[in-house]
Amino acid sequence: MSERIYTAAVVVIGNEILSGRTQDTNLRDIATSLGEWGIRVMEARVIPDIEDTIVAVINEVRARHDYVLTTGGIGPTHDDITAASIAKAFGVDLVEHPTIAALIRRREAPPHVMASRLRMAMVPLGAGLIDNTTGGPPGFFIGNVHVMAGVPAVMRAMLASLRSKLIGGAVLQSRSVTAYLAESVIAAPLRQLQADHPATDIGSYPFNTEGRFGTTLVVRGTDIAQLDQLVEKITAMIVQAGGTPAA
Amino acid sequence: MSERIYTAAVVVIGNEILSGRTQDTNLRDIATSLGEWGIRVMEARVIPDIEDTIVAVINEVRARHDYVLTTGGIGPTHDDITAASIAKAFGVDLVEHPTIAALIRRREAPPHVMASRLRMAMVPLGAGLIDNTTGGPPGFFIGNVHVMAGVPAVMRAMLASLRSKLIGGAVLQSRSVTAYLAESVIAAPLRQLQADHPATDIGSYPFNTEGRFGTTLVVRGTDIAQLDQLVEKITAMIVQAGGTPAA
Repeated sequence: MSERIYTAAVVVIGNEILSGRTQDTNLRDIATSLGEWGIRVMEARVIPDIEDTIVAVINEVRARHDYVLTTGGIGPTHDDITAASIAKAFGVDLVEHPTIAALIRRREAPPHVMASRLRMAMVPLGAGLIDNTTGGPPGFFIGNVHVMAGVPAVMRAMLASLRSKLIGGAVLQSRSVTAYLAESVIAAPLRQLQADHPATDIGSYPFNTEGRFGTTLVVRGTDIAQLDQLVEKITAMIVQAGGTPAA
Repeated sequence: MSERIYTAAVVVIGNEILSGRTQDTNLRDIATSLGEWGIRVMEARVIPDIEDTIVAVINEVRARHDYVLTTGGIGPTHDDITAASIAKAFGVDLVEHPTIAALIRRREAPPHVMASRLRMAMVPLGAGLIDNTTGGPPGFFIGNVHVMAGVPAVMRAMLASLRSKLIGGAVLQSRSVTAYLAESVIAAPLRQLQADHPATDIGSYPFNTEGRFGTTLVVRGTDIAQLDQLVEKITAMIVQAGGTPAA
């Protein structure tokens, strides 16, 4: 198989994530959805609301991956500088998008409030829109960079509307088996299984749930029959090591 | 004030975060602790268990920041390649650390299990140790790079032991005020307040909790008296905009 692999980078923009004030959950949601669409998230960056940093990081990752998805910094306040920074990264003007402006103008507001809301209509010249079913202003895309809100509910609405737009390849499937055994007990036979199955990625993830230690073994690949065969071998290996496998 | 500012990068190493299987929480814990110690996390990278990627990213961020903290990939299985990759990044050999090896040998095990556990004693030549009060093998540091476990409880134990080792500067303090107002309603006066107080960073974070929309305003700076004054002005501004401020 030489099917094309589609890759993506996620860029989380926001001081609040880097200060520890806010727990990011958008990366996981994006990674899960893109995975289901056959697109592999190869890296994520969390960066502050600093224009030079946003410009440099966007230009670095958009050259390296098929898709870039960003979250955060597209609201109406002074610290929302994502749209202006993306415009600068692409070397184009920041302009008012008539569709967004019309949507925003539908709801009346005092002049200074309207002026602030209209900041959310400013997009890089040439950008297309990303639907926002929550009723707020849409996100936008330019080139391969897709710019979404940071508020998780709004981000998820925008992400859902990307489903029909992003082309993906073969979906990386996964199967997992859990064993209440220390990783070191199964490390040697597991290494052999990985060596025997180079096309499949075997991950070993130790955990500690309610004081009980164990290991979850995750196999990933595009061929389900191969994964199922490997899971059988891993299950037998766990039994041989004295453990009780659980799905 | 021209006090030195200390910066850090966090590198989260692990396919499971990029696949969406696992929700990372280590970044937030690290950012919160470093903030309390007077060290600012300026960027975070989430990268896969691929040696070339780890080497490149570590060499990039260690040159750019005072400290680098990594999580993940230091267990006993075939997919734990962080220590070897860090050694490669520093151009030094990967060697068995006698202190870790002695700790591991204290608990008896069959030869193949012991061989796997001893993988956790392999560190870059010249590395020092990061205590692990959970009883497992320690983490390590080399140069300004601090390498910790990915399992959150173990990571936190290692992070705690770094407290007395990492030198920080003035702590960035924060105060916050919440208003059940749309961001756009306060965006204009807020922009003016930010312009009038360039030494203080004002962040505006919209939220939607149980169907109720609002905005949390966060001020950050090293001078508490200045922050308190600014919070008073923000509170007055919220009242003027028709909102009810909450701490």
